[in-house]
Amino acid sequence: MILYQGLTMLDVFGPLEALQQLSYVHKLNLYLISDNLDTVTSEVPATENPLHSHFFTNLKPTHTFATVPSDLEVLMIPGGAGPVGGLRALNSTVDFIRTTYPKLRYLITICVGSGLAAQAGVLDGKRATTHKGAWSTIVPLGPNVTWVHKARWVEDGNIWTSSGVSAGIDVTFAFIQKIYGAENATAVANGIEYDRHMDPDWDPFSDIFPISNSTS
Amino acid sequence: MILYQGLTMLDVFGPLEALQQLSYVHKLNLYLISDNLDTVTSEVPATENPLHSHFFTNLKPTHTFATVPSDLEVLMIPGGAGPVGGLRALNSTVDFIRTTYPKLRYLITICVGSGLAAQAGVLDGKRATTHKGAWSTIVPLGPNVTWVHKARWVEDGNIWTSSGVSAGIDVTFAFIQKIYGAENATAVANGIEYDRHMDPDWDPFSDIFPISNSTS
Repeated sequence: MILYQGLTMLDVFGPLEALQQLSYVHKLNLYLISDNLDTVTSEVPATENPLHSHFFTNLKPTHTFATVPSDLEVLMIPGGAGPVGGLRALNSTVDFIRTTYPKLRYLITICVGSGLAAQAGVLDGKRATTHKGAWSTIVPLGPNVTWVHKARWVEDGNIWTSSGVSAGIDVTFAFIQKIYGAENATAVANGIEYDRHMDPDWDPFSDIFPISNSTS
Repeated sequence: MILYQGLTMLDVFGPLEALQQLSYVHKLNLYLISDNLDTVTSEVPATENPLHSHFFTNLKPTHTFATVPSDLEVLMIPGGAGPVGGLRALNSTVDFIRTTYPKLRYLITICVGSGLAAQAGVLDGKRATTHKGAWSTIVPLGPNVTWVHKARWVEDGNIWTSSGVSAGIDVTFAFIQKIYGAENATAVANGIEYDRHMDPDWDPFSDIFPISNSTS
Protein backbone atom coordinates (compact mmCIF):
# COMPACT_ATOMS: atom_id res chain seq x y z
CA MET A 1 0.00 0.00 0.00
CA ILE A 2 1.35 3.38 -1.02
CA LEU A 3 1.17 6.12 1.61
CA TYR A 4 1.54 9.86 1.26
CA GLN A 5 0.75 12.96 3.30
CA GLY A 6 -2.94 13.88 3.26
CA LEU A 7 -4.20 10.45 2.25
CA THR A 8 -7.72 9.33 3.03
CA MET A 9 -7.34 6.80 5.83
CA LEU A 10 -10.44 4.74 5.02
CA ASP A 11 -9.04 4.21 1.52
CA VAL A 12 -6.17 2.43 3.26
CA PHE A 13 -7.84 0.73 6.20
CA GLY A 14 -10.96 -0.59 4.47
CA PRO A 15 -9.01 -2.73 2.00
CA LEU A 16 -6.30 -3.62 4.53
CA GLU A 17 -8.81 -4.77 7.14
CA ALA A 18 -10.30 -7.25 4.67
CA LEU A 19 -6.84 -8.42 3.62
CA GLN A 20 -5.60 -8.76 7.20
CA GLN A 21 -8.54 -11.06 7.94
CA LEU A 22 -7.66 -13.03 4.79
CA SER A 23 -4.05 -13.25 5.96
CA TYR A 24 -5.11 -15.62 8.74
CA VAL A 25 -5.98 -18.26 6.14
CA HIS A 26 -3.62 -17.27 3.28
CA LYS A 27 -0.14 -16.10 4.10
CA LEU A 28 0.17 -12.44 3.16
CA ASN A 29 2.76 -9.83 3.97
CA LEU A 30 2.09 -6.11 3.96
CA TYR A 31 4.45 -3.28 3.07
CA LEU A 32 3.42 0.29 3.82
CA ILE A 33 5.43 2.21 1.24
CA SER A 34 6.15 5.90 1.03
CA ASP A 35 8.70 8.40 -0.23
CA ASN A 36 10.35 8.34 3.20
CA LEU A 37 9.70 6.85 6.62
CA ASP A 38 8.05 9.94 8.09
CA THR A 39 4.68 9.21 9.65
CA VAL A 40 1.93 10.20 7.23
CA THR A 41 -1.22 11.87 8.48
CA SER A 42 -4.70 12.47 7.14
CA GLU A 43 -4.30 16.22 7.55
CA VAL A 44 -5.74 18.02 4.55
CA PRO A 45 -4.73 21.45 3.24
CA ALA A 46 -5.99 24.35 5.36
CA THR A 47 -8.31 25.42 2.54
CA GLU A 48 -10.26 22.18 3.05
CA ASN A 49 -10.33 22.58 6.82
CA PRO A 50 -11.68 26.10 7.31
CA LEU A 51 -12.73 25.58 10.94
CA HIS A 52 -9.22 24.46 11.94
CA SER A 53 -10.47 21.20 13.33
CA HIS A 54 -7.72 18.98 14.61
CA PHE A 55 -9.08 15.64 13.60
CA PHE A 56 -6.28 13.73 11.97
CA THR A 57 -4.98 10.20 12.22
CA ASN A 58 -1.52 8.84 11.46
CA LEU A 59 0.24 5.82 10.00
CA LYS A 60 3.93 5.03 9.80
CA PRO A 61 5.43 3.54 6.60
CA THR A 62 7.41 0.33 6.88
CA HIS A 63 9.40 0.85 3.68
CA THR A 64 10.41 3.59 1.29
CA PHE A 65 10.18 3.43 -2.49
CA ALA A 66 13.90 2.64 -2.40
CA THR A 67 13.79 -0.11 0.23
CA VAL A 68 10.60 -2.00 -0.55
CA PRO A 69 11.36 -5.69 -1.18
CA SER A 70 11.40 -6.78 -4.81
CA ASP A 71 8.79 -9.49 -4.22
CA LEU A 72 5.99 -6.95 -4.34
CA GLU A 73 3.05 -8.57 -6.16
CA VAL A 74 0.08 -6.28 -5.59
CA LEU A 75 0.30 -2.50 -5.37
CA MET A 76 -2.58 -0.52 -3.88
CA ILE A 77 -2.89 3.25 -4.30
CA PRO A 78 -5.23 5.16 -1.99
CA GLY A 79 -6.80 8.54 -2.60
CA GLY A 80 -6.32 11.69 -0.63
CA ALA A 81 -5.97 15.41 -0.74
CA GLY A 82 -2.73 15.21 -2.71
CA PRO A 83 -4.12 14.04 -6.03
CA VAL A 84 -7.19 16.25 -5.70
CA GLY A 85 -5.71 19.43 -4.35
CA GLY A 86 -2.43 19.12 -6.17
CA LEU A 87 -0.85 20.91 -3.26
CA ARG A 88 1.77 18.32 -2.49
CA ALA A 89 4.56 17.08 -4.69
CA LEU A 90 3.79 13.46 -5.46
CA ASN A 91 6.29 13.09 -8.28
CA SER A 92 8.23 10.34 -6.52
CA THR A 93 4.99 8.44 -5.97
CA VAL A 94 4.06 8.68 -9.63
CA ASP A 95 7.57 7.62 -10.62
CA PHE A 96 7.36 4.59 -8.31
CA ILE A 97 4.05 3.54 -9.81
CA ARG A 98 5.44 3.90 -13.34
CA THR A 99 8.58 1.85 -12.73
CA THR A 100 6.94 -0.76 -10.48
CA TYR A 101 3.84 -1.54 -12.51
CA PRO A 102 5.58 -3.76 -15.10
CA LYS A 103 6.76 -6.08 -12.28
CA LEU A 104 3.37 -6.36 -10.56
CA ARG A 105 0.76 -9.06 -10.73
CA TYR A 106 -2.02 -6.62 -9.87
CA LEU A 107 -2.57 -2.91 -9.37
CA ILE A 108 -5.55 -1.67 -7.33
CA THR A 109 -6.52 1.96 -6.89
CA ILE A 110 -8.99 3.43 -4.45
CA CYS A 111 -10.85 6.71 -4.91
CA VAL A 112 -8.67 9.39 -6.54
CA GLY A 113 -5.67 7.09 -6.30
CA SER A 114 -6.51 6.40 -9.95
CA GLY A 115 -5.36 9.95 -10.61
CA LEU A 116 -1.85 8.98 -9.53
CA ALA A 117 -1.96 5.84 -11.68
CA ALA A 118 -3.17 7.95 -14.60
CA GLN A 119 -0.28 10.36 -14.18
CA ALA A 120 2.08 7.40 -14.23
CA GLY A 121 0.62 6.42 -17.61
CA VAL A 122 -0.26 2.90 -16.53
CA LEU A 123 -3.97 3.40 -17.21
CA ASP A 124 -3.39 4.47 -20.82
CA GLY A 125 -5.65 2.53 -23.16
CA LYS A 126 -7.56 1.03 -20.26
CA ARG A 127 -10.97 1.52 -18.70
CA ALA A 128 -10.90 3.04 -15.22
CA THR A 129 -12.97 4.94 -12.67
CA THR A 130 -12.51 7.31 -9.74
CA HIS A 131 -14.45 9.27 -7.10
CA LYS A 132 -17.51 10.77 -8.77
CA GLY A 133 -17.23 13.96 -6.75
CA ALA A 134 -13.70 14.57 -8.05
CA TRP A 135 -14.41 13.59 -11.65
CA SER A 136 -13.53 16.87 -13.32
CA THR A 137 -10.21 17.04 -11.48
CA ILE A 138 -9.04 13.48 -12.01
CA VAL A 139 -10.18 12.71 -15.56
CA PRO A 140 -7.87 15.29 -17.20
CA LEU A 141 -4.90 13.53 -15.53
CA GLY A 142 -5.48 10.59 -17.90
CA PRO A 143 -6.40 11.85 -21.37
CA ASN A 144 -5.69 8.43 -22.88
CA VAL A 145 -7.83 6.57 -20.33
CA THR A 146 -11.39 5.42 -21.00
CA TRP A 147 -12.99 6.78 -17.86
CA VAL A 148 -16.16 4.98 -16.77
CA HIS A 149 -18.48 7.26 -14.83
CA LYS A 150 -21.06 4.77 -13.56
CA ALA A 151 -19.06 2.07 -11.80
CA ARG A 152 -18.39 0.94 -8.24
CA TRP A 153 -15.18 -0.44 -9.65
CA VAL A 154 -13.63 -1.30 -13.03
CA GLU A 155 -11.43 -4.31 -13.78
CA ASP A 156 -9.30 -4.10 -16.94
CA GLY A 157 -6.49 -6.56 -17.35
CA ASN A 158 -4.52 -6.65 -14.14
CA ILE A 159 -5.67 -3.22 -12.99
CA TRP A 160 -8.64 -2.66 -10.70
CA THR A 161 -9.76 0.93 -10.13
CA SER A 162 -12.55 1.83 -7.72
CA SER A 163 -14.82 4.73 -7.00
CA GLY A 164 -14.75 6.94 -3.89
CA VAL A 165 -13.40 5.85 -0.50
CA SER A 166 -15.86 3.12 0.59
CA ALA A 167 -15.73 1.57 -2.87
CA GLY A 168 -12.22 0.45 -2.00
CA ILE A 169 -13.71 -2.13 0.34
CA ASP A 170 -15.94 -3.52 -2.40
CA VAL A 171 -13.16 -3.73 -4.98
CA THR A 172 -10.95 -5.48 -2.43
CA PHE A 173 -13.63 -8.10 -1.84
CA ALA A 174 -14.08 -8.52 -5.60
CA PHE A 175 -10.32 -9.03 -5.83
CA ILE A 176 -10.32 -11.53 -2.95
CA GLN A 177 -13.20 -13.40 -4.56
CA LYS A 178 -11.42 -13.65 -7.92
CA ILE A 179 -7.99 -14.60 -6.59
CA TYR A 180 -8.84 -16.52 -3.40
CA GLY A 181 -12.39 -17.71 -4.12
CA ALA A 182 -15.92 -16.83 -3.11
CA GLU A 183 -15.79 -18.87 0.07
CA ASN A 184 -12.92 -16.83 1.48
CA ALA A 185 -14.50 -13.56 0.36
CA THR A 186 -17.74 -14.45 2.10
CA ALA A 187 -16.02 -15.61 5.26
CA VAL A 188 -14.00 -12.42 5.53
CA ALA A 189 -17.05 -10.23 4.83
CA ASN A 190 -19.04 -12.04 7.51
CA GLY A 191 -16.11 -11.75 9.89
CA ILE A 192 -16.20 -7.98 9.63
CA GLU A 193 -20.01 -7.92 9.24
CA TYR A 194 -19.67 -6.11 5.93
CA ASP A 195 -22.53 -5.94 3.43
CA ARG A 196 -20.70 -6.10 0.10
CA HIS A 197 -21.74 -4.46 -3.12
CA MET A 198 -20.99 -7.25 -5.58
CA ASP A 199 -22.16 -5.56 -8.79
CA PRO A 200 -19.36 -3.44 -10.30
CA ASP A 201 -21.97 -1.35 -12.13
CA TRP A 202 -23.84 -0.40 -8.94
CA ASP A 203 -23.18 3.30 -8.47
CA PRO A 204 -25.84 5.68 -7.12
CA PHE A 205 -23.10 8.25 -6.62
CA SER A 206 -22.78 8.69 -10.39
CA ASP A 207 -26.27 10.25 -10.19
CA ILE A 208 -25.53 12.23 -7.03
CA PHE A 209 -22.40 13.64 -8.69
CA PRO A 210 -23.32 13.87 -12.38
CA ILE A 211 -20.47 14.73 -14.72
CA SER A 212 -21.69 18.23 -15.38
CA ASN A 213 -21.80 19.09 -11.68
CA SER A 214 -18.70 17.35 -10.42
CA THR A 215 -16.19 19.49 -8.64
CA SER A 216 -12.80 19.02 -7.13
CA MET B 1 -11.01 7.09 20.48
CA ILE B 2 -9.46 4.52 22.79
CA LEU B 3 -6.55 2.55 21.35
CA TYR B 4 -4.97 -0.67 22.57
CA GLN B 5 -2.67 -3.35 21.21
CA GLY B 6 -4.42 -5.76 18.85
CA LEU B 7 -7.33 -3.48 18.02
CA THR B 8 -9.30 -3.88 14.81
CA MET B 9 -8.23 -0.96 12.65
CA LEU B 10 -11.46 -0.63 10.66
CA ASP B 11 -13.31 -0.22 13.96
CA VAL B 12 -11.22 2.92 14.41
CA PHE B 13 -10.88 4.27 10.89
CA GLY B 14 -14.44 3.75 9.66
CA PRO B 15 -15.96 5.99 12.33
CA LEU B 16 -13.03 8.43 12.30
CA GLU B 17 -13.17 8.87 8.52
CA ALA B 18 -16.82 9.94 8.73
CA LEU B 19 -16.07 12.26 11.63
CA GLN B 20 -13.00 13.77 9.93
CA GLN B 21 -15.18 14.67 6.94
CA LEU B 22 -17.72 16.18 9.37
CA SER B 23 -14.91 18.16 11.02
CA TYR B 24 -14.62 20.32 7.91
CA VAL B 25 -18.08 21.78 8.62
CA HIS B 26 -18.27 21.37 12.42
CA LYS B 27 -15.19 22.00 14.49
CA LEU B 28 -14.09 18.74 16.06
CA ASN B 29 -10.90 17.71 17.79
CA LEU B 30 -9.69 14.15 18.05
CA TYR B 31 -7.72 12.51 20.83
CA LEU B 32 -6.25 9.07 20.29
CA ILE B 33 -6.05 7.75 23.84
CA SER B 34 -4.20 4.77 25.19
CA ASP B 35 -2.54 3.42 28.29
CA ASN B 36 0.76 4.86 27.07
CA LEU B 37 2.13 6.54 23.96
CA ASP B 38 3.56 3.38 22.39
CA THR B 39 2.39 2.86 18.82
CA VAL B 40 -0.45 0.35 18.77
CA THR B 41 -0.66 -2.25 16.03
CA SER B 42 -3.34 -4.55 14.67
CA GLU B 43 -1.20 -7.60 15.38
CA VAL B 44 -3.34 -10.38 16.80
CA PRO B 45 -2.20 -13.21 19.11
CA ALA B 46 -0.19 -15.92 17.31
CA THR B 47 -3.00 -18.38 17.85
CA GLU B 48 -5.18 -16.31 15.52
CA ASN B 49 -2.42 -15.96 12.91
CA PRO B 50 -1.33 -19.56 12.32
CA LEU B 51 0.37 -18.85 8.97
CA HIS B 52 2.59 -16.16 10.50
CA SER B 53 1.42 -13.56 8.04
CA HIS B 54 2.95 -10.17 8.64
CA PHE B 55 0.01 -8.01 7.75
CA PHE B 56 -0.34 -5.42 10.46
CA THR B 57 -0.94 -1.69 10.53
CA ASN B 58 -0.08 0.84 13.18
CA LEU B 59 -1.38 3.98 14.85
CA LYS B 60 0.25 6.25 17.39
CA PRO B 61 -1.75 7.60 20.36
CA THR B 62 -1.81 11.34 20.94
CA HIS B 63 -2.66 11.14 24.64
CA THR B 64 -2.57 8.70 27.53
CA PHE B 65 -5.40 8.01 29.94
CA ALA B 66 -3.52 10.31 32.32
CA THR B 67 -2.95 13.21 29.91
CA VAL B 68 -6.14 13.35 27.84
CA PRO B 69 -7.75 16.81 28.13
CA SER B 70 -10.71 17.09 30.47
CA ASP B 71 -12.99 18.47 27.74
CA LEU B 72 -13.59 14.99 26.35
CA GLU B 73 -17.23 14.81 25.27
CA VAL B 74 -17.54 11.60 23.24
CA LEU B 75 -15.63 8.41 23.95
CA MET B 76 -15.40 5.71 21.29
CA ILE B 77 -14.24 2.18 22.09
CA PRO B 78 -13.14 -0.09 19.22
CA GLY B 79 -13.02 -3.85 19.21
CA GLY B 80 -9.99 -6.05 18.78
CA ALA B 81 -8.27 -9.19 19.85
CA GLY B 82 -7.88 -7.99 23.42
CA PRO B 83 -11.50 -8.19 24.52
CA VAL B 84 -12.07 -11.41 22.58
CA GLY B 85 -8.92 -13.31 23.33
CA GLY B 86 -8.45 -11.94 26.81
CA LEU B 87 -4.74 -12.32 26.20
CA ARG B 88 -3.80 -8.76 26.98
CA ALA B 89 -4.25 -6.86 30.20
CA LEU B 90 -6.79 -4.15 29.51
CA ASN B 91 -7.46 -3.29 33.14
CA SER B 92 -6.32 0.30 32.72
CA THR B 93 -8.62 0.69 29.72
CA VAL B 94 -11.59 -0.62 31.65
CA ASP B 95 -10.71 1.65 34.59
CA PHE B 96 -10.53 4.66 32.26
CA ILE B 97 -13.95 3.88 30.81
CA ARG B 98 -15.45 3.48 34.28
CA THR B 99 -14.10 6.75 35.64
CA THR B 100 -14.62 8.77 32.45
CA TYR B 101 -18.15 7.74 31.55
CA PRO B 102 -19.90 9.95 34.13
CA LYS B 103 -18.27 13.05 32.57
CA LEU B 104 -19.14 12.17 28.96
CA ARG B 105 -21.93 13.39 26.75
CA TYR B 106 -21.88 10.18 24.69
CA LEU B 107 -20.24 6.77 24.65
CA ILE B 108 -20.00 4.79 21.41
CA THR B 109 -18.67 1.25 21.14
CA ILE B 110 -17.76 -0.66 18.00
CA CYS B 111 -17.74 -4.43 17.66
CA VAL B 112 -16.45 -6.17 20.82
CA GLY B 113 -15.56 -2.79 22.28
CA SER B 114 -18.87 -3.25 24.11
CA GLY B 115 -17.13 -6.01 26.05
CA LEU B 116 -14.79 -3.42 27.54
CA ALA B 117 -17.69 -1.12 28.35
CA ALA B 118 -19.51 -4.05 29.95
CA GLN B 119 -16.52 -4.85 32.11
CA ALA B 120 -16.47 -1.22 33.23
CA GLY B 121 -20.07 -1.62 34.38
CA VAL B 122 -21.35 1.30 32.34
CA LEU B 123 -23.75 -0.88 30.35
CA ASP B 124 -25.46 -2.28 33.46
CA GLY B 125 -29.23 -1.99 33.15
CA LYS B 126 -28.96 -0.92 29.52
CA ARG B 127 -29.63 -2.54 26.15
CA ALA B 128 -26.50 -3.19 24.09
CA THR B 129 -25.11 -5.28 21.25
CA THR B 130 -21.79 -6.61 19.98
CA HIS B 131 -20.21 -8.67 17.16
CA LYS B 132 -22.49 -11.64 16.50
CA GLY B 133 -19.53 -13.95 15.91
CA ALA B 134 -18.16 -13.21 19.37
CA TRP B 135 -21.48 -13.32 21.19
CA SER B 136 -20.72 -16.15 23.60
CA THR B 137 -17.45 -14.51 24.65
CA ILE B 138 -18.71 -10.97 25.14
CA VAL B 139 -22.15 -11.46 26.67
CA PRO B 140 -20.84 -13.04 29.91
CA LEU B 141 -18.74 -9.89 30.45
CA GLY B 142 -21.97 -8.00 31.14
CA PRO B 143 -24.38 -10.19 33.16
CA ASN B 144 -26.50 -7.15 34.04
CA VAL B 145 -26.76 -5.94 30.44
CA THR B 146 -29.79 -6.60 28.22
CA TRP B 147 -27.94 -7.89 25.19
CA VAL B 148 -29.78 -7.48 21.87
CA HIS B 149 -28.76 -10.12 19.35
CA LYS B 150 -30.45 -8.81 16.22
CA ALA B 151 -29.24 -5.22 15.86
CA ARG B 152 -26.88 -3.25 13.64
CA TRP B 153 -26.61 -0.90 16.58
CA VAL B 154 -28.45 -0.13 19.83
CA GLU B 155 -29.00 3.33 21.30
CA ASP B 156 -29.87 3.46 25.01
CA GLY B 157 -29.62 6.77 26.81
CA ASN B 158 -26.29 8.32 25.90
CA ILE B 159 -24.66 5.01 24.96
CA TRP B 160 -24.54 3.67 21.42
CA THR B 161 -23.24 0.12 20.93
CA SER B 162 -22.77 -1.41 17.50
CA SER B 163 -22.34 -4.81 15.97
CA GLY B 164 -19.18 -6.15 14.27
CA VAL B 165 -16.52 -3.94 12.66
CA SER B 166 -18.34 -2.40 9.68
CA ALA B 167 -21.36 -1.63 11.87
CA GLY B 168 -19.20 1.04 13.48
CA ILE B 169 -19.57 3.11 10.33
CA ASP B 170 -23.35 2.86 10.43
CA VAL B 171 -23.63 3.74 14.11
CA THR B 172 -21.35 6.72 13.53
CA PHE B 173 -23.61 7.99 10.76
CA ALA B 174 -26.67 7.46 12.99
CA PHE B 175 -24.89 9.49 15.67
CA ILE B 176 -23.97 12.23 13.18
CA GLN B 177 -27.56 12.32 11.95
CA LYS B 178 -28.98 12.69 15.46
CA ILE B 179 -26.49 15.24 16.74
CA TYR B 180 -25.58 17.17 13.56
CA GLY B 181 -28.64 16.54 11.38
CA ALA B 182 -29.61 14.45 8.40
CA GLU B 183 -28.20 16.91 5.89
CA ASN B 184 -24.69 16.61 7.30
CA ALA B 185 -24.95 12.85 7.60
CA THR B 186 -26.01 12.55 3.97
CA ALA B 187 -23.32 14.93 2.76
CA VAL B 188 -20.58 13.03 4.57
CA ALA B 189 -21.88 9.65 3.37
CA ASN B 190 -21.94 10.90 -0.22
CA GLY B 191 -18.48 12.37 0.19
CA ILE B 192 -17.08 8.96 1.03
CA GLU B 193 -19.51 7.18 -1.31
CA TYR B 194 -20.83 5.11 1.55
CA ASP B 195 -24.14 3.24 1.35
CA ARG B 196 -25.46 3.54 4.89
CA HIS B 197 -27.59 1.04 6.71
CA MET B 198 -30.08 3.34 8.40
CA ASP B 199 -32.24 0.73 10.15
CA PRO B 200 -30.76 -0.20 13.55
CA ASP B 201 -32.63 -3.52 13.41
CA TRP B 202 -31.07 -4.57 10.08
CA ASP B 203 -28.76 -7.46 10.92
CA PRO B 204 -28.33 -10.44 8.60
CA PHE B 205 -25.30 -11.43 10.65
CA SER B 206 -27.54 -12.40 13.57
CA ASP B 207 -28.74 -15.23 11.29
CA ILE B 208 -25.27 -16.05 10.00
CA PHE B 209 -24.02 -16.27 13.58
CA PRO B 210 -27.00 -17.57 15.58
CA ILE B 211 -26.64 -17.52 19.34
CA SER B 212 -26.31 -21.27 19.65
CA ASN B 213 -23.45 -21.40 17.17
CA SER B 214 -21.53 -18.28 18.10
CA THR B 215 -17.92 -18.76 19.04
CA SER B 216 -15.13 -16.59 20.26
